Amino acid sequence: MHAPPAPSPDFAAELLRGHLANDEQGLVQIEIAADRVLAETGLRFESDPETLDLWRERGATVKDERVTLDGAWLRQVIRATAPRRITLRGRNPARDTILGDGHAPVFTPIYGAPNVLDHAGRRSLGSRAHYRRAMEIAHASSAISNTGQMICVMDDVPEARRPLEIALMHLSLSDKPFMGSIASPGDVEAVIDAAVAAIGRPPCPGEAELLHLVNATPPLVYKENPLKCLRTIAWRGQASLVTSYMMMGATSPVTIAGSLIQGYAEVLAGMALAQLWRPGAPVVMGLYAIPFGMRSMVPCYGDPASHLIQQYATQLARRLGVPVRGEGGVTSSKLDDGQAGLESALTLSASISSGADFILHGAGWLEQGRCLSLGKLRREAARIAETCGFDMQDCSPPLPLDPAFEQDLRARIAAI
Amino acid sequence: MHAPPAPSPDFAAELLRGHLANDEQGLVQIEIAADRVLAETGLRFESDPETLDLWRERGATVKDERVTLDGAWLRQVIRATAPRRITLRGRNPARDTILGDGHAPVFTPIYGAPNVLDHAGRRSLGSRAHYRRAMEIAHASSAISNTGQMICVMDDVPEARRPLEIALMHLSLSDKPFMGSIASPGDVEAVIDAAVAAIGRPPCPGEAELLHLVNATPPLVYKENPLKCLRTIAWRGQASLVTSYMMMGATSPVTIAGSLIQGYAEVLAGMALAQLWRPGAPVVMGLYAIPFGMRSMVPCYGDPASHLIQQYATQLARRLGVPVRGEGGVTSSKLDDGQAGLESALTLSASISSGADFILHGAGWLEQGRCLSLGKLRREAARIAETCGFDMQDCSPPLPLDPAFEQDLRARIAAI
Repeated sequence: MHAPPAPSPDFAAELLRGHLANDEQGLVQIEIAADRVLAETGLRFESDPETLDLWRERGATVKDERVTLDGAWLRQVIRATAPRRITLRGRNPARDTILGDGHAPVFTPIYGAPNVLDHAGRRSLGSRAHYRRAMEIAHASSAISNTGQMICVMDDVPEARRPLEIALMHLSLSDKPFMGSIASPGDVEAVIDAAVAAIGRPPCPGEAELLHLVNATPPLVYKENPLKCLRTIAWRGQASLVTSYMMMGATSPVTIAGSLIQGYAEVLAGMALAQLWRPGAPVVMGLYAIPFGMRSMVPCYGDPASHLIQQYATQLARRLGVPVRGEGGVTSSKLDDGQAGLESALTLSASISSGADFILHGAGWLEQGRCLSLGKLRREAARIAETCGFDMQDCSPPLPLDPAFEQDLRARIAAI
Repeated sequence: MHAPPAPSPDFAAELLRGHLANDEQGLVQIEIAADRVLAETGLRFESDPETLDLWRERGATVKDERVTLDGAWLRQVIRATAPRRITLRGRNPARDTILGDGHAPVFTPIYGAPNVLDHAGRRSLGSRAHYRRAMEIAHASSAISNTGQMICVMDDVPEARRPLEIALMHLSLSDKPFMGSIASPGDVEAVIDAAVAAIGRPPCPGEAELLHLVNATPPLVYKENPLKCLRTIAWRGQASLVTSYMMMGATSPVTIAGSLIQGYAEVLAGMALAQLWRPGAPVVMGLYAIPFGMRSMVPCYGDPASHLIQQYATQLARRLGVPVRGEGGVTSSKLDDGQAGLESALTLSASISSGADFILHGAGWLEQGRCLSLGKLRREAARIAETCGFDMQDCSPPLPLDPAFEQDLRARIAAI
């Protein structure tokens, strides 16, 4: 376990007891400080002239790729059109989930693991077979109400085919909502096309087939691909989870307040951008930071600093009127041992108690996210089901996917 | 893992988010319902005529051993004289701890384990050598600010000698505050005598050398020994942790509300009794309940039902103006594995976030409390230190115990 610099006992006790999270004055101070960052330093929007043109049109100051922005105006833009609640649609309408408005949180499996630890204790690169196994666990779990995206990398599938292969896995092995691809704008489109066709319901404001993880690149940068994906997602009326995921001391200030300020500036710009591309585009706010171990060069998961970031993030999102992401069972441990259980549970319970709406990496995470553990996925999913009282939800097999659709999708993948 | 009957998702989400814990109306309803239990059913005070005489003198109706009581009067008795904050004294005054008034929580090791799992993975009956090892870990940890009591049973010490042997361990291997014996009223006295002499400071209201765990026996009973111990402790001006520890569905109603009502009735009577024996006697309230697995016949630790009990218990104690106990790293697991980490962390974080003042079983607990794990004790103590920011507290070796005192105490033990 790693020991970041610790605050004084009384300060920590205050924080742990959540007193500061209800402190409106503190929240306003974060907003004001973020506004100053946006106005004085600004954000860099890399290699995407269309985004720069849009900011320019709306009166922002653009210098090379750096844009200085008016935070109060960004909040106004978001509050004016971003939906307070978002319905994510599954192939089975009975499994639609609602984010926001006090609904129970939605949980997903780990997202993005290159490696898999299987039930026999073997650790290897992720494969199609692993993905199938993870999908079966995720679908069968009453806790996992969104099967997520890229639960592991499928190393035995050519890279260009993976986005649609993943979509096919989620569509054929489950009828729950899942998340979209962000591999490229073209992949965003292809997966949206597949999901919209398979789910087969007319568009409706505040409803979306897919939620997409769109990441800022702290400090204060958006890269080309996320910018282009965000625009495509918004244009298609789909949902974005606009996230700043910071390493405190590495990609953001080492302090809680400093990271909150930077992260809030980042996600504010991203969510407003989605509204400017398409007013009413569903957005979920993600703001998370983890103390970074300077000796071990790994993030220190389960640290109370992160819990505080989460508490504040949830409050900041509530003030904007958008649903908010929570962090799930994250840990630095390489095995599903006591450390893994403790770090994961501390993080998860901070997210749930903060009131987060969409819990990413809800189950199955090991090794700073570099490994999907099938055993931990199953164990944590079972525990979340108990803890959140999801036990009575329907776990029956998925509605069958239309064979003609499936055949067509397989043919399209084979042609890539 | 065990699956108790689950509430509906929205209900659970509400509960997990703590909305109900701030519900004053709900708290008043619990008080009113407990008053009805006290007035209509009453409590049984077994085999202790002095307690029955006291209740009778104070106007309560005593029939055989059953006493019906006026809850509003009991609250009045407690509010009138029980201290809002309690200073627990160590041999080293710099290590005194304060319970209540918003101070950081105090953590103890597990209390009462008959077995020990050592660093080599061997599980055996507890011994003097194990106790010494546990004390060294507890003293060296900045998180464990109270070294507790009976961290494990010393099976290689004759039973009659154990209370003073334990006191000697705590006094010689640490200079932090610890807890008193409740083996018998005579042992209470003997350990108080030893602690008062070793700590060597004049009595002071609201300060105590020892905190003693005094348990009700749910449902609605106090047994002879705890009643006699409670009286001795109060007369000596020492502190009592008056606790109702319920198994929901076995020793208390299966519902959260029902268990809160029963447990509150029990601890209210116990804490008032302490005040009646000696106004101003320091009392800490403990009210905890765990869903009992009817198939496995073990309690289901880490369940959100228990978190809610804890949240309400803390609020009920705040309304009385007394410090409150929180539950520590408790689990049903037999190994320090993922399940142990998860259940322990969930329980601990619910206690801390509720605002509990004194966390019993803070570290080292396995197997429903039947086993002290030295590895888990060390790991959890390290984690609590990080989590609560205790890292900078002094961990230097204890002040030496006066050799003449130690020799005398050893002689007294040898004479038992």
